[in-house]
Amino acid sequence: MIVLLRAGAGAEAARAVEAELARAGAGARRVTGGERLAVETAGPHAPLDDDARARLAALDGVEALLDAPDPNPRVRAARGPVEIASPRGPFAVGAGELTFAFGPCAVDDERELWLAAAAARAAGARLLRGGAFKPRTSPYAFQGHGAAALKALRRAADAHGLAVVSEATSEAALDAVAAECELVQLGARSMACTPLLRAAARAGRPLLLKRGFGATVDEWLAAAEYLLDGGAPGVILCERGIRTFEPGTRATLDVGGLALARLRTALPIFADPSHAAGTRALVAPLALAAAAAGADGLIVECAADAGRARSDGPQALALDELAPLARAAAAVARAARKEFEVCSRPWQIQSTPRSSASPR
Amino acid sequence: MIVLLRAGAGAEAARAVEAELARAGAGARRVTGGERLAVETAGPHAPLDDDARARLAALDGVEALLDAPDPNPRVRAARGPVEIASPRGPFAVGAGELTFAFGPCAVDDERELWLAAAAARAAGARLLRGGAFKPRTSPYAFQGHGAAALKALRRAADAHGLAVVSEATSEAALDAVAAECELVQLGARSMACTPLLRAAARAGRPLLLKRGFGATVDEWLAAAEYLLDGGAPGVILCERGIRTFEPGTRATLDVGGLALARLRTALPIFADPSHAAGTRALVAPLALAAAAAGADGLIVECAADAGRARSDGPQALALDELAPLARAAAAVARAARKEFEVCSRPWQIQSTPRSSASPR
Amino acid sequence: MIVLLRAGAGAEAARAVEAELARAGAGARRVTGGERLAVETAGPHAPLDDDARARLAALDGVEALLDAPDPNPRVRAARGPVEIASPRGPFAVGAGELTFAFGPCAVDDERELWLAAAAARAAGARLLRGGAFKPRTSPYAFQGHGAAALKALRRAADAHGLAVVSEATSEAALDAVAAECELVQLGARSMACTPLLRAAARAGRPLLLKRGFGATVDEWLAAAEYLLDGGAPGVILCERGIRTFEPGTRATLDVGGLALARLRTALPIFADPSHAAGTRALVAPLALAAAAAGADGLIVECAADAGRARSDGPQALALDELAPLARAAAAVARAARKEFEVCSRPWQIQSTPRSSASPR
Amino acid sequence: MIVLLRAGAGAEAARAVEAELARAGAGARRVTGGERLAVETAGPHAPLDDDARARLAALDGVEALLDAPDPNPRVRAARGPVEIASPRGPFAVGAGELTFAFGPCAVDDERELWLAAAAARAAGARLLRGGAFKPRTSPYAFQGHGAAALKALRRAADAHGLAVVSEATSEAALDAVAAECELVQLGARSMACTPLLRAAARAGRPLLLKRGFGATVDEWLAAAEYLLDGGAPGVILCERGIRTFEPGTRATLDVGGLALARLRTALPIFADPSHAAGTRALVAPLALAAAAAGADGLIVECAADAGRARSDGPQALALDELAPLARAAAAVARAARKEFEVCSRPWQIQSTPRSSASPR
Repeated sequence: MIVLLRAGAGAEAARAVEAELARAGAGARRVTGGERLAVETAGPHAPLDDDARARLAALDGVEALLDAPDPNPRVRAARGPVEIASPRGPFAVGAGELTFAFGPCAVDDERELWLAAAAARAAGARLLRGGAFKPRTSPYAFQGHGAAALKALRRAADAHGLAVVSEATSEAALDAVAAECELVQLGARSMACTPLLRAAARAGRPLLLKRGFGATVDEWLAAAEYLLDGGAPGVILCERGIRTFEPGTRATLDVGGLALARLRTALPIFADPSHAAGTRALVAPLALAAAAAGADGLIVECAADAGRARSDGPQALALDELAPLARAAAAVARAARKEFEVCSRPWQIQSTPRSSASPR
Repeated sequence: MIVLLRAGAGAEAARAVEAELARAGAGARRVTGGERLAVETAGPHAPLDDDARARLAALDGVEALLDAPDPNPRVRAARGPVEIASPRGPFAVGAGELTFAFGPCAVDDERELWLAAAAARAAGARLLRGGAFKPRTSPYAFQGHGAAALKALRRAADAHGLAVVSEATSEAALDAVAAECELVQLGARSMACTPLLRAAARAGRPLLLKRGFGATVDEWLAAAEYLLDGGAPGVILCERGIRTFEPGTRATLDVGGLALARLRTALPIFADPSHAAGTRALVAPLALAAAAAGADGLIVECAADAGRARSDGPQALALDELAPLARAAAAVARAARKEFEVCSRPWQIQSTPRSSASPR
Repeated sequence: MIVLLRAGAGAEAARAVEAELARAGAGARRVTGGERLAVETAGPHAPLDDDARARLAALDGVEALLDAPDPNPRVRAARGPVEIASPRGPFAVGAGELTFAFGPCAVDDERELWLAAAAARAAGARLLRGGAFKPRTSPYAFQGHGAAALKALRRAADAHGLAVVSEATSEAALDAVAAECELVQLGARSMACTPLLRAAARAGRPLLLKRGFGATVDEWLAAAEYLLDGGAPGVILCERGIRTFEPGTRATLDVGGLALARLRTALPIFADPSHAAGTRALVAPLALAAAAAGADGLIVECAADAGRARSDGPQALALDELAPLARAAAAVARAARKEFEVCSRPWQIQSTPRSSASPR
Repeated sequence: MIVLLRAGAGAEAARAVEAELARAGAGARRVTGGERLAVETAGPHAPLDDDARARLAALDGVEALLDAPDPNPRVRAARGPVEIASPRGPFAVGAGELTFAFGPCAVDDERELWLAAAAARAAGARLLRGGAFKPRTSPYAFQGHGAAALKALRRAADAHGLAVVSEATSEAALDAVAAECELVQLGARSMACTPLLRAAARAGRPLLLKRGFGATVDEWLAAAEYLLDGGAPGVILCERGIRTFEPGTRATLDVGGLALARLRTALPIFADPSHAAGTRALVAPLALAAAAAGADGLIVECAADAGRARSDGPQALALDELAPLARAAAAVARAARKEFEVCSRPWQIQSTPRSSASPR
């Protein structure tokens, strides 16, 4: 935002603007030219709310507040929880309680999948996760059992009263995944594949959009804008870690990015601590951190026997770890939210979109 | 670690080793040459505990487990809470309860400092933070009031029964800081300045070591090793965010790095959500995330009037936000820890250092 | 690689191994357990050549050299230049001379496209580049003219004796792109979309594989392995910049990554300085840097009028800048290569694949 | 920069401004509020030159161009080559010809140091580099021979007619280094230690300022501003690689950052390809890339026997590689510069500082 001062307004007016911006959480930088002085916001900050804008506009010497249109108007305007169908009837994601999606990285042994589904159910999960089409770095790695895996997921989920979430890695896979799964995942590697986004938007199912590990929060929200613009009946965001120089974890779970997205949209946001951790011992701390930072749900990998898993065994929780993790995460989320409105209102979503950007 | 198989042992033995490693949370990669086959760990993983090692060693065909010596034996061997002096007597950091350090970024107006100290005290903080020697990007930015600021911190802290933490940016500043402050901070910009680390180790005070924003967890722990090797009476680590490509936050708070450090050392670990956030609305989510991931304390900037702060105003909490934040963080930490041992034991520190690395 | 010492061999043998590894450009780390001592390579290094391996194997106390199989055997085994068809007959990429692909970011005005084609031809380019299917961050940004743009490219290229390279962003677009273009580009955003890679491998055209901006060199080569494994008649790699914390350039052109890829494969490697630069003034330095580091070709955006371009105008070179850039780049490449074999042999590709990894 | 339109000016005026900005290499974004419309620059771009500004100011509907003051006025105003004393008389860095600084990472064996000095001299180097005070990650690693190493460097350099460059890691070391070395290095780990910068500025010697591996180009220039503001008789910048997610090189040599710094200052810029490479085979490609991108000098590690080096052996060139590398780099630089003014003028430094920022 740029706070344009009236011609002739001087340093004192600029200082007052800078102070008001600081109170609103924004840094400031002066720009000058000819007889004009203005102050532009600098550094990270939430969109200024109506009160802050009114205070700025009322300051001596302020002529106008200049804003860029929001690049993602549908993401900004989106409201309320996302409803997901399930064998036991629909449930809402983002309505206050944490939602859990547990299951194996890739579907392989059906008996183990049923054990995982039973443990997920017992731990309070609403969703069974499992990979049918696996995007793998090497062409020689196990790529998933495809349609057969989807059928197995469906059977296990139906038997345990769970909805299914699984990834569609291509337009060709979308129909099959949408046919069997109540929630269709778009993975981190394909977040920027806009033709896939457009096709997924037409699949008729709510979508779980993972953030690309090389994508900024703004790019992630723009990918969600593709989905909403294309008619997706619901979009859930999912933070899963970004690429950084730190080699000790598989990715760096960006809880700040999650909280930043929360400031910009009311879409529900999940976190995937498993892929960020890369190893079992780090899954729980990351899951709880995400719950504390405001995640609406957690998608976590587990395995009946990590030693037999055909992908990502080292980061799979044991089945008996699911229930304690779910209890701890729920307790953390409750504790975080209880004090939150008093404390700093970070999750208060502005009710009026600032700009009248027309999406077309 | 490398699991060396006996000459002649084949793929079946390797598969058993790989499965056992996966159960221990570690990835694996086979290496071969001549008639030898071995399996090396790959990807992020915690140090393997004694049980896992015993199981590996007992597998058919395993000849030996080969390890590198721990590069930071003193950091690994360090035990227990760190004791900090204060006007009301010593207190322990890392003993189970969260420790709070609240105060302004830089000390400027003494009246506002006293207001901050009073609010910090009321919120349950043990430490008053405040910058006297400020490391600033620009030589023309406010660099802090130096020794005078230390005296002001001392007066405000004494009046409110708080200990003081402040940064020493140079060897020259160390004496002054150590004379007035119960805890001496080494900042992110100087974490890799080994002469300063060595001098700080001799200052006779416990040290708060911030992670450099370009430093890996291993480098951070190696900096702590300098301090312990040099005789520091206590070291507290502090995660404050790393540099990544995400422009929407000032830094990326690495809660995974914090949890990883927790797996490698019993030294207490703080988090600084203010510098990672860069803006007020993100401070609370990051503070709570760190508490959930296992932080022992939080160091948070506040200001009586963010609009008058001479540095970092946009990220300073208002004084009336401190108490709710402290309550929420304490509740989150309790919730996280309650289920934790059941859930995945990530914070269990191994009792026996694996390697007999002699530090000299 | 792990250099396994015989049981009983001690620190002296390890020191000799470490020295030999250092001479071969590799760092080293000792691992021990029971009575065994071994030395593993550490840090970045090129695959060790046969002479270095023979010297290591011949050292006192060395029992075996243990290696992991190469994950990308087809990329490693690939040889020689890639042949590209064109209206004037086929030409070879990677045969010693720099290849240039010039043209607009997106095809829009056909008259301007012809001006660009003429300037490209006059500057010595073999390929006309131009976007028909554009992957854009925002759904409301110009997405390219699709099939019509491909026809326009074909006409302009035929008229000027150029081959065409254009991106296929989806499986649906592959046929159209392959029908009109002698070289099919897979873009940075879809490098990790393995279904698209598999489909592209069957398109019957040589492929230009851009490195994802969040992908490591190893992942980039693994994507090329998908293409070769799927039957692609030729693969050209293209470095275009990675995501880092530096905000002053659009991406960080990784010339080190380019040189590293050169050590691991004989596939030709292009560089795209335009997308890394993000602004015109940085295109030439980055283009010349890539040429000096060993690039086989450059793909550069230009525009008859940058002010009218519908995407990426700020980074488009003016048409009269193409010829001087091509001359400078060719001169730089010649200068670099002239001294190179004497100087440090970095581009000598090992003639025998080290491991007998069977790709299936 | 913000291009403020007159009240009432509409979309047409904004489009003309956007086109002009694109021609100047800058992206653009519209901001609006009340009846005001303005266009702000977006994305990476060089400072606009006087012609571009005049064209913008002359467009219909433009009221004013608003700029922020340059944060580093002394860096921007700095002119001309830096003169370095040497046993054979002073020489100029940044005057057109490449300057070479060759020598061991750390000074250890004096005989080997003399061999390195002889080879450096024979290869055309003006400077002998060598570490006396070594900043090492581990407190148990070799930390350099300190003052004795400086004396040895001095003797070797005097005998071979070379100037000496060596790092001062602390204020305490500054006097000793400045006493023996014609050029005092400030290392990547201490670039942000402002007390050290201030002390170094008073040492009376020209300074070689390495970019921190976690520092942006702007922060690097701000560190140089500290030096110039403090009275340093000359400053040479040195790019040595930044931290990224790519594990295959020790750091990512940021040639784009080097070229960007070139657009903002006339201070000479070196590159250190050795620390970015981490392994010998990558040193030459990176050195040549830097020369092509406009480096004024190269600082490269070498060793008489890499197997005996006590630090960084794997990245040390053999002594007989120095001369071919120097020849290749010089040829590359000549080739790059020959066509450059014609080609895109990236190195033309603006003659008039845009803003009248007063540094105090």
